[in-house]
Parts: sequence; C-alpha cells; structure tokens
Amino acid sequence: MSSLHAVIMAGGSGTRFWPASRRARPKQFLPLAGGRLLIQATIDRLAGLCDRDHVWIVTNARQAKALHKLLPDFPRDHLVVEPEARDTAPCVALATATIAAIDPQATMIVMPADHVIEPVAEFQRMLRRAAAIAAGSGALVTFGVRPDHPATGYGYIECGERHDQSEPRAFTATRFREKPDQATAQQFLQSGRFLWNSGIFVWTVDAIRRAMQHGNEALGAAADRMLLALRQGQRAQVTRAFKRAPKTSVDYAVMERAEQVVVVEATVRWDDVGSFPAIRAVGVGDDDGNFGLLAGGASQLTLHSRDNIVYAEGRRTVALFGVRDLVVVAVGDAVLVCPKDRAADLKLMVEHVRASGRDDLL
Amino acid sequence: MSSLHAVIMAGGSGTRFWPASRRARPKQFLPLAGGRLLIQATIDRLAGLCDRDHVWIVTNARQAKALHKLLPDFPRDHLVVEPEARDTAPCVALATATIAAIDPQATMIVMPADHVIEPVAEFQRMLRRAAAIAAGSGALVTFGVRPDHPATGYGYIECGERHDQSEPRAFTATRFREKPDQATAQQFLQSGRFLWNSGIFVWTVDAIRRAMQHGNEALGAAADRMLLALRQGQRAQVTRAFKRAPKTSVDYAVMERAEQVVVVEATVRWDDVGSFPAIRAVGVGDDDGNFGLLAGGASQLTLHSRDNIVYAEGRRTVALFGVRDLVVVAVGDAVLVCPKDRAADLKLMVEHVRASGRDDLL
Repeated sequence: MSSLHAVIMAGGSGTRFWPASRRARPKQFLPLAGGRLLIQATIDRLAGLCDRDHVWIVTNARQAKALHKLLPDFPRDHLVVEPEARDTAPCVALATATIAAIDPQATMIVMPADHVIEPVAEFQRMLRRAAAIAAGSGALVTFGVRPDHPATGYGYIECGERHDQSEPRAFTATRFREKPDQATAQQFLQSGRFLWNSGIFVWTVDAIRRAMQHGNEALGAAADRMLLALRQGQRAQVTRAFKRAPKTSVDYAVMERAEQVVVVEATVRWDDVGSFPAIRAVGVGDDDGNFGLLAGGASQLTLHSRDNIVYAEGRRTVALFGVRDLVVVAVGDAVLVCPKDRAADLKLMVEHVRASGRDDLL
Repeated sequence: MSSLHAVIMAGGSGTRFWPASRRARPKQFLPLAGGRLLIQATIDRLAGLCDRDHVWIVTNARQAKALHKLLPDFPRDHLVVEPEARDTAPCVALATATIAAIDPQATMIVMPADHVIEPVAEFQRMLRRAAAIAAGSGALVTFGVRPDHPATGYGYIECGERHDQSEPRAFTATRFREKPDQATAQQFLQSGRFLWNSGIFVWTVDAIRRAMQHGNEALGAAADRMLLALRQGQRAQVTRAFKRAPKTSVDYAVMERAEQVVVVEATVRWDDVGSFPAIRAVGVGDDDGNFGLLAGGASQLTLHSRDNIVYAEGRRTVALFGVRDLVVVAVGDAVLVCPKDRAADLKLMVEHVRASGRDDLL
C-alpha cells in the first residue's frame, strides 16, 4: 500500500464564532476540543496513522504566522501557504502538487482543521478502510455522517450499492446535493439513503489528478503546472498557477463530476462545531442545561438561568441571572449577547461591526 | 442667618450595581453622573451654596481610602470616618458633633452621596429655602418628591398644612411611612398628600441635638459624648461613644418622633439611581431604546436589539444581537447578564456569588 499523507485545510474565517474568532484567529484556533485548539486536536488525531512528516497544513499567510506561534513544534516547511483565498479546489490542487512532488504514489487524506471527531481509534480505523479502498480501486473516497435530523445547513451524499461487504460500510456515491430546503432535507432523512457530507476525503495522488482533469480542465492544468514548478523549484510559478486556477469548490468541480466516488459511513461522533450552540456538545454543562466553554481561567456563575451557552476566555467571570436560551461570549475586548436561535445568523452582526467602522474588532 | 454646612453620607455598598459596584467601590464611586462619579457630582452640586471648607463626607475606613485616591483635592480632615457601620442615626450624631465642635450655630444639610439631582440652580434654591425655615423655626426640614407611580421601594411622607405661602412649597410633615405595599402605595399616590422621602435633611445643630435627645435618649447622649470628646481632642472617646450609640436609622429614631418636621416639595429632577434600569435616566439612548453608560473607552454595538441597558467600563465593546429588555454589564473581571425586570433582585445574585466562594468578585 502506498504511503499515507494528511492535508489539513485550515483556511476558514469563522464569523459564526465572533468575537471569539477574529480574522487572525479563525475557529480552528479556538480551544473547542476539551481545552485544546481544534487544529491541535486535528493533528493529534492523526498520530499513529500518518508519519509526522506526512502531515501538511494548507492555510493563508496571516494564519500561517499564527500557526507557527501556536504550534511551534509543527515543521514550518509543512505549512503550505495559499497565495490567496480561492475556495477549496485550488487549495486541493496545491496540496496535491506539493505531495506529488515528493511522493507520487501517495494516498492523501484531506480534512478540515476545525471539526471535533471522536473516538480517535475508530476515526483511524475508518480512514484506514478508506485508504485501502482508494489505493485498491482508484476511487475518490469521502465520508458520510448518518443524519439524525433534517439539517438544511449541510451537503448530502446519496448512497447507491454497497462497495463491498467489509466494515465500516462503504457505498457507491450516486449524487451530491448541496444544502437542501427543509422539505427536501426531510425526504433525504426519511429515505435512509442520504448521508451528510463530512468534508473529509481520501484519494491517491493519481486519482485526484485525473479527477481534476476530468471535472475541470483548467483546474487539472493548474495542478499540473504547480507540480512542474515545484519540481523545478520555481515558487513564483507556483503562485502564478494557483492564482489562475478556477475559484471553485472541490465538491462542485471534482466530486460531483467524478466517475468513481465511494462514501464510507462514519462510525465516529462527528461535530463541525458550526456555531456557539454547538458548545453544548464540546463544553461542560450544569443541571440547568447551561453549557460553558471556559478557557484561560474563565468561570461562570448562574442563578435562575437555563439552557444558556457561555464562552469565555481569560481571568473573568460571566454571571447569568434569570436568563435563558442566550449565548454570552466574553473574549478579549468584546462581549456578545444574542439568543441561541440567532447564533447561526451571527455574520449579520459581524457585517454590522464592519459597517460601523469597527474593523479593529474583526 | 447661621453658616451652612453640608454632610454627605457615603456609606452604602450598592449590591444593586454589582459587578460595577464592589465592596471597595460602592455606587457613589460609579461614573453615573454624565461620566462624573456620583460623589463628585454631589460635591460639585454644593458649589456656591456652602463654603468649600463647610463640606464633610461621612464614610467608612475602606471607602475613605478610596475617596482620598479618587478625590485628591478633597481635604482629608473633612473625611469623617465612622468607626463601624451602625446605620444612619449614629452617623448623623457623629456628623452633628463634628460640626457642633467648630460651629455650634451652624445649619446642616445632610444628604446621600449617590443621587442624581438636577438642575443645580434649582437644587440650591430649594436648599436655601429649607435652610431659612430650619434656622427661622427650629424645625427639622426634609425634602419630598411628588410620586409619579405607586413605588413600593421608597418611604413616604404625609403632608399637612402649608408651612407658609413661599415657594418652593413647604408643609408640616404629619407622618412618615416606610416602604408600603402596592395597595397602600396606590392610595398614597391617589390622595395627593404623600411625597417620597428623598433622604435629604436640613436642620440647625441645635435642633437636631434636641431632636435626637427627644427621639432616642441613648442616641442624644451618644451625640453629646462625641461632642465633648471632640472638644477635648479625645479620639478614642469619640469612637467609644459611636460604638455605644443605638444602631438605628435617623428616620426611625429621630424624624418619625420629632415634634416639628417640615417637608419642602422638591422642584428638581431627582433620581436615586437605584439599579441598572435607572441608567435610562442618566445614560445615552439610541433609536431602539437601548441605553448605555459607557466609561473609560467602552462602546456598544446593537443590532435587532431593543430596550436594553448596557453598562461598560474600559476599552471594551458590548455587542447585542437580537436581544431585548436585558441588562448587560461588563466591568473589570466580570460580565453580568440579567433581564431588566430582575435587576432590582440583583442582591440574590450577589448572595449566590458569595455562597459560591467567590468573595474575590465582591
């Protein structure tokens, strides 16, 4: 079996965690993984699965600096810096070229930096299974999470035939569907044939290169140019090719058009920690349903209060008295209060902050 | 007419402004007077009415230190330090003895440190009128505020005959009534004969000494002993007499039993700034009914939010998104969120903080 590399995509801005997340401190830098940073937990989750020098982080220049500071042990030459933000397809092309330049027979895992996935042993079993399928069949392998409610915020993958009879179960993926409306999501849930798209992929370098070429010729060409330039040590040419790559997502440009996609059904607890209410899943709760994520000496005191979410960092105390269903955030120079059911719309508040000329808070 | 002295009583702890107010920083030290500290505004309000060296502040030892730091221009020997907290009657006895020792013919104003009263010119006109009545008749003079709602949190004074035909109007006070129940408060309001007790008094040294003797013999004796000890320069004897004085309020021990009390109807805007919602009266509002009191570089940003109260100090921003009728406080190491209609019960939260072993926050 070919050697296994892991690419952690750490580009997001995470306005849904403002003011905890800022431009220079996206969601993956928040201590949402039991006190550890999400990015650290993502790296740790790979230990024993990949060699340490087979782990890569693709990120932007601003975050690369922050990463180096927060993770001083992570080798700097494994921080792959995107020349600009161009969605996920050019990001995958750059990562593929980077790995292909040193290990053309590699199998690659591509995964987001900011999800919580547990338990680790099961996660690794699932990835080994996917890597075996990818290396054996040349398929693009993705992971699907079985829905437990008709979410409209996720993409869905429709499952066809079982790929084989091994476990965890793997299916031929027959269709990708971006965020559906409520009625469609309900149908998907009831049919039992749809899984949530987890955004984690496994494929061989060879397979993804062919799939890029097949799905979007300009993307395939950009990946080839980046690989050539890397082999020749021409950094400027890499940047140029990246900037010319089509600004599109890997789901749209590659996965939805690929000839052979297999989806492995996730057997782990998986949470994309999409917004503050998700702290219910990763924070500490009390008897009244108040959940807190408290880092760096922060504490909370609640009285006559139910079902609130508190996120606080640093030596400070958040006191709740007689409130319910609120999100209360206290980080650095900012405090945010909003109802839990508005937390998903937090980008409106971030836009308001920007429109108010308060870029210093972003 | 005798010379006019003013005694500012600055003893309260102000749990209703926690966490802005703390043990070492009671309400009168908060910047609730248009950015100025309440105590500073109280002193400033006397300018032109009393000589500067006729202004006294009675307080406890802890606050005396803080006062000296915050008001370095205020003469230290005019800070009268209570040996212990014994309610308002011993406090008035000590203040009376202090002034009597240097100016036996004085007329005294006694007033709280933590009220907002405007406009200043009208306040002074009202006090001059009261001082003239006190000096002319030997009555204890108090001020009453005409109720605009059936408040149950204030004491009431019942008005009898007009004292004379001058303005502002003055009446013989026929009865004091402590905080009434809702039905009684409603009757008081409808009768038109009751005014809220403002806690501001004017009397001659001679009159208050006689009234203490008449109302509570032990109190009168304590005042006499303190005066004697002060004249003899015996500080320890003053402390001893103070600690032996009955622990009771001046309203109960003196005013309610006095033979001759006159109430002057206040012609000023008067606010005791009793709890956070009172910031509506002293803060800055926006078009959505959000009122903020922001000091030391604090700011607020609100979106889809109505009728909230924000109190913040220091370089920080409070962002409200989609909330209404909340109190949000961010001061030092603490953030508080509670509904406006629970703000009057904030002492319950303070008790919870104490019970949680978090004395560091008090």
